[in-house]
Amino acid sequence: MKKQYTLAELAQYLGASLIGEPECMIHGLDTLTRAKPGQLSFLANARYARLLEDCAASAVILHADQSEHFAGNKLVVDDPHLSYARISELFDPRPRLEPGCHPSATVAPNCRLGEGVRIGAQAVISEGVILGDGVEVGPGCFIGAGTVIGANSYLAANVSIYHGVVIGPSCIIHSNAVIGSDGFGFAPAEGRWQKVHQLGGVRIGAEVEIGANSAIDRGALEDTVIGDGVKIDNLVHIAHNVRIGKNTAIAANSAIAGSASLGENCTVAGCVGIAGHVTITDKVHLSGMSMVTNSIPEPGAYSSGIPLSPSTEWRKNAVRFKQLNSLMARVKQLEQDKEQDTQKDENEDQE
Amino acid sequence: MKKQYTLAELAQYLGASLIGEPECMIHGLDTLTRAKPGQLSFLANARYARLLEDCAASAVILHADQSEHFAGNKLVVDDPHLSYARISELFDPRPRLEPGCHPSATVAPNCRLGEGVRIGAQAVISEGVILGDGVEVGPGCFIGAGTVIGANSYLAANVSIYHGVVIGPSCIIHSNAVIGSDGFGFAPAEGRWQKVHQLGGVRIGAEVEIGANSAIDRGALEDTVIGDGVKIDNLVHIAHNVRIGKNTAIAANSAIAGSASLGENCTVAGCVGIAGHVTITDKVHLSGMSMVTNSIPEPGAYSSGIPLSPSTEWRKNAVRFKQLNSLMARVKQLEQDKEQDTQKDENEDQE
Amino acid sequence: MKKQYTLAELAQYLGASLIGEPECMIHGLDTLTRAKPGQLSFLANARYARLLEDCAASAVILHADQSEHFAGNKLVVDDPHLSYARISELFDPRPRLEPGCHPSATVAPNCRLGEGVRIGAQAVISEGVILGDGVEVGPGCFIGAGTVIGANSYLAANVSIYHGVVIGPSCIIHSNAVIGSDGFGFAPAEGRWQKVHQLGGVRIGAEVEIGANSAIDRGALEDTVIGDGVKIDNLVHIAHNVRIGKNTAIAANSAIAGSASLGENCTVAGCVGIAGHVTITDKVHLSGMSMVTNSIPEPGAYSSGIPLSPSTEWRKNAVRFKQLNSLMARVKQLEQDKEQDTQKDENEDQE
Repeated sequence: MKKQYTLAELAQYLGASLIGEPECMIHGLDTLTRAKPGQLSFLANARYARLLEDCAASAVILHADQSEHFAGNKLVVDDPHLSYARISELFDPRPRLEPGCHPSATVAPNCRLGEGVRIGAQAVISEGVILGDGVEVGPGCFIGAGTVIGANSYLAANVSIYHGVVIGPSCIIHSNAVIGSDGFGFAPAEGRWQKVHQLGGVRIGAEVEIGANSAIDRGALEDTVIGDGVKIDNLVHIAHNVRIGKNTAIAANSAIAGSASLGENCTVAGCVGIAGHVTITDKVHLSGMSMVTNSIPEPGAYSSGIPLSPSTEWRKNAVRFKQLNSLMARVKQLEQDKEQDTQKDENEDQE
Repeated sequence: MKKQYTLAELAQYLGASLIGEPECMIHGLDTLTRAKPGQLSFLANARYARLLEDCAASAVILHADQSEHFAGNKLVVDDPHLSYARISELFDPRPRLEPGCHPSATVAPNCRLGEGVRIGAQAVISEGVILGDGVEVGPGCFIGAGTVIGANSYLAANVSIYHGVVIGPSCIIHSNAVIGSDGFGFAPAEGRWQKVHQLGGVRIGAEVEIGANSAIDRGALEDTVIGDGVKIDNLVHIAHNVRIGKNTAIAANSAIAGSASLGENCTVAGCVGIAGHVTITDKVHLSGMSMVTNSIPEPGAYSSGIPLSPSTEWRKNAVRFKQLNSLMARVKQLEQDKEQDTQKDENEDQE
Repeated sequence: MKKQYTLAELAQYLGASLIGEPECMIHGLDTLTRAKPGQLSFLANARYARLLEDCAASAVILHADQSEHFAGNKLVVDDPHLSYARISELFDPRPRLEPGCHPSATVAPNCRLGEGVRIGAQAVISEGVILGDGVEVGPGCFIGAGTVIGANSYLAANVSIYHGVVIGPSCIIHSNAVIGSDGFGFAPAEGRWQKVHQLGGVRIGAEVEIGANSAIDRGALEDTVIGDGVKIDNLVHIAHNVRIGKNTAIAANSAIAGSASLGENCTVAGCVGIAGHVTITDKVHLSGMSMVTNSIPEPGAYSSGIPLSPSTEWRKNAVRFKQLNSLMARVKQLEQDKEQDTQKDENEDQE
């Protein structure tokens, strides 16, 4: 069960230059300080080059610039962090389900299951579901009627996907994520709320990852759309009719309100709130806890919020925030008075 | 399976004035720009009236003021948005479960199930549960002992409801929502925490909607209470002993701390935090990311937080926040100096 | 089924001084205003001593200082709130599962189950799982391969625990919590993201409580570590490689980013965001919605954010925030001008 590879195999997998013993066996991956003989490590940040000296790993992935600092076996690459990411897959101990449907799963008769599909215990697959080749549906998952999941996508345990959702290939969806729940749509009706039934769906591209306990609502009429390569962390809310461009990454506990549109290659840090109906262009980077209430037409880094202080100091400053507009007026008044005085002085001097 | 209605039927359902062909068949609903022949659309906002000209829908719901702008069939109503909401229900494609209990579900023998109850695959219904007529419990749901759910309420897949919870009729609870988990109650005990067991329950009114992955805790001694018509979005936290008045709506990722009380007909936007033990009156509207630390005795709109800036600008301003109190003092000093100078000048002038 | 105890038994359990009838039967616990004869109540806060007069409880837990204010039976203790917490366990109506495995559960053959283990309906226990004595696994839970759960820990319904997680004894994990999901790790690769597979695990100490819909990610290489006695509320995100010290409590909707380290006996209020890689020392107290972007080396109370205002006022002040740095410069200018004037005046006076 333990996966192991020769350094030569790993060098070939990475396209790395191997300096050292090609037959050296590697059975694991760890940090420079923790790696033991038989394991591989990596130096992603030159700041930590001093750790190479005492590193016990059998081999290290590093950039040519640091090569001299390690005496042992080396895999020399252009981007050690990326190489580490790629090689991490080889040592992932995640157990896979057995191919086929677990006998305790409930699978509707008219589903279409690709080659090598794996369906876990107690999972429920509704009518008309289509699962591509190699799809793995974890134990306890629910997949609603007519939902389509692309090849090699993987759903961890207890994921809930409603009807009429389309998910691309090679996606990863973590436990208790929900996709296709109703958007939060209501019309006011004499002091109460009339539900707007959500008739749209959700379309998710290829290689999307969705974190644990995140929720993506179905569209009101049109679909909610998540582009290829989008990465969504845990506990993220994506409201109805949101559109997220390719390769945008959204960190945990962020919420994106209805009909907002995010561009490609954006990064949204944790706890960010994005208001409904705004449009954010490509390559926008939002720092943690940012509050986005307007569209962002220019790429770049944006922030909001107040930095932390000791509570006693914070209270003194926070109360002044409510006087900020009047403070501004007072400073303006002082400036005008000053201006007048200067005028007066000049006039007097000229007299 | 496809639902279709004549315009005459729809006009009657809405109480609308029909202008056009009563026998025109409608089999769907979409936006003005997307609707095709055979579908109905609606104009909820006069700003979009120009879209009526090219609208391909077989009929449009609109207000009498806009009636002249559309040449085709019309359903004329007072509130097109509300009419759209009402009619959306007719075209909702959500598949319903088969009546009865799925054979894979686990239903305790002493439950009381109303007429037409539907229980999905792998669901677990504990001892003494009472489900009203027409209740639908999605696949994988858990319902704890003694919990009561009112007629026609619908639980999507994988909802978890603890013991001793009371839910009214016509509620909708989305996937992976949790109701009745323990409130976060601990007594400090020599550096560690002694759990306060949560002996209260949760009482939820009629026509309440609860979003995906939201959590409502049971009370410590008294119940947590959610009023009729309350709408709760995804990923919302409602702590123990919170009370929420009728028809209040709470958007995603908001959190309401213990024993807080919200009035009726409030709206809470996304990512709002409400401190424990505060009381908020009726008709309070909180904008996104508001931080509520005190009670709000007056109806109205309230906000907090800092608007977004480019990060470089934000950093310059944010650092100044910590000097706000001293800045205020400095301005006061300048004003006093000014005042003194003016006094002095006046005195000199009088001399 | 109803639990009842004599006052003498309760006094002994608490180590309290009993004033009154030792044989008085107590079958419940409630607040001073709600308690009925046959129930016990408690006075935790001297401010409410006036409620003792009309209290109908058969007995009250209170401090000696308040003893004179209640005429009935009394359990006199040093810390009434702590005593209430301890006694609340006796009256907790939470039903326990039957001992053994429910026939609908799926339990891999090579698991090790301790004495008195209870496994609920539709639960799924994977290969090599070890459950200590008295562990209770709720209906619909998933436990991944090789995960170990200590004695007397309790998982409510629909909890998802991935492979290779270690959980200590006497923990409580609420519904739909997720433990061991992949950390959010990706390496940039020519405009897309290369997944960093998460090879670490999660280690959770003893007496940890984890709220509904919270998520704790597994580490990238090292483990994510949650100390003994840590209490985590609902909808909290704990990223990969986070370390949380003993007895720290984290309230709902907070998020702790990757590799952040929290000390012991900290309290984190709701909706707090903590940036990655920061280190927070022991006994730090963060108020609600705090934004933590830097390490905190000193114990104490810290805050950030802006207090709530009526929206019209807030808008006026918020727009000024963006001018704060220039306002500071303007005040500095005024001060310099003032300084110059004073110099000039002094010079003139000396001339």
